[in-house]
Amino acid sequence: MPPEPLICTVDLVLLTLQAGQLQVLLLKRDREPFAGALALPGGYVHTGEDQSCEDAALRVLQDKAGLQGLYLEQLATFSGPGRDPRGWSVSVAYLAVVDAGTLDAQGAPVRAAHWRPVDRLPALPFDHGRIIATAVERVRGKSLYSSLPAHLCPAPFTLPELQAVYEAVLGETVNHVSFRRKMGELDCLDAVPGGKRADGAHRPAQLYRLKQEFRQRLRLVGRGLKA
Amino acid sequence: MPPEPLICTVDLVLLTLQAGQLQVLLLKRDREPFAGALALPGGYVHTGEDQSCEDAALRVLQDKAGLQGLYLEQLATFSGPGRDPRGWSVSVAYLAVVDAGTLDAQGAPVRAAHWRPVDRLPALPFDHGRIIATAVERVRGKSLYSSLPAHLCPAPFTLPELQAVYEAVLGETVNHVSFRRKMGELDCLDAVPGGKRADGAHRPAQLYRLKQEFRQRLRLVGRGLKA
Repeated sequence: MPPEPLICTVDLVLLTLQAGQLQVLLLKRDREPFAGALALPGGYVHTGEDQSCEDAALRVLQDKAGLQGLYLEQLATFSGPGRDPRGWSVSVAYLAVVDAGTLDAQGAPVRAAHWRPVDRLPALPFDHGRIIATAVERVRGKSLYSSLPAHLCPAPFTLPELQAVYEAVLGETVNHVSFRRKMGELDCLDAVPGGKRADGAHRPAQLYRLKQEFRQRLRLVGRGLKA
Repeated sequence: MPPEPLICTVDLVLLTLQAGQLQVLLLKRDREPFAGALALPGGYVHTGEDQSCEDAALRVLQDKAGLQGLYLEQLATFSGPGRDPRGWSVSVAYLAVVDAGTLDAQGAPVRAAHWRPVDRLPALPFDHGRIIATAVERVRGKSLYSSLPAHLCPAPFTLPELQAVYEAVLGETVNHVSFRRKMGELDCLDAVPGGKRADGAHRPAQLYRLKQEFRQRLRLVGRGLKA
């Protein structure tokens, strides 16, 4: 049986941490359907130029959010007859993560008004609410056993600053000693030579960055933070 | 810009455990391209009847392998201009897992000759080798912190039998005491009332089944088996 045509798009869930909360980038749609509504950045696959759906997602990130070089992973594919009024559609959704310092460094091309806390979203078109919920669950789950939260922490950072990021993502405090042991096991950080930050009454704390090899791929460990 | 048409299929990686090895179901393709070649079961999305890509995967599992009611999860989406000679394509790949007992009970409609050990695959068309490798990595990774391997163990089973399944999937032995503690934490098993199996010189061992609520979704724990 010859295949029936269907719509194939990519959607991008770009998350950052601001004001201690996970926030997602939403842009005003410039065309129907739902023109004028806030929605996830996304777009059609351009078969003439994209080499993969991941390519399409990187293109959308660059063209619609002006960002590149971020941590990106495929989230899940959402499909069906009812998610898009234009017809049966398949959307390959991607998760990207960026820290507030990188947003500044890349010129904060997306204005502050475009970010929304993931726990207080407006009504969204298509199944974007469900896609965002899936992304948040992925980030929270991976925070238990990987270096993912480090991508949300402006570098260079102290270990207490990184711990605060893990706690903001997880929505709960983490045992201080467990955290340091976990970071030791992950071994995903480089100390900045001579880099220290004064921290109030405490002696200056060592500064760290993510190791180069873990900037595009995650470091995972077997024992989670909650073990 | 109007979207260019592309091919959208689902592909199914159905894994079982036989002879202590993870094995994947491969079927002879009955049409071009690659007619006659062994490949993953798959098919086009039928927008007239499927409510989602998952629906399409379940339909393929039923129609091409004669199986239903198995544990199924979305694996990943593979895409690009070169994976299918018919043109730019997107394939939403699914992972399904079945134990040897269920295969027998459902009439083993797929003959033994169709299974291949995942570590000794023939040359495969499209990017099916890569899709299978992704599925095996997923199963091995999830075996460290979930109930997934229980779906590969004919029920009812003893704890030593279940431990042997985890070890066959992981490719290494697991500490006996750690395993029993992990099964306690997972709390995903029901003891069969009065059900025991004699085990050679040992006293008869208790028989178990997966709890009903974990037959379609996995039970996860924070601390992995290798911790």
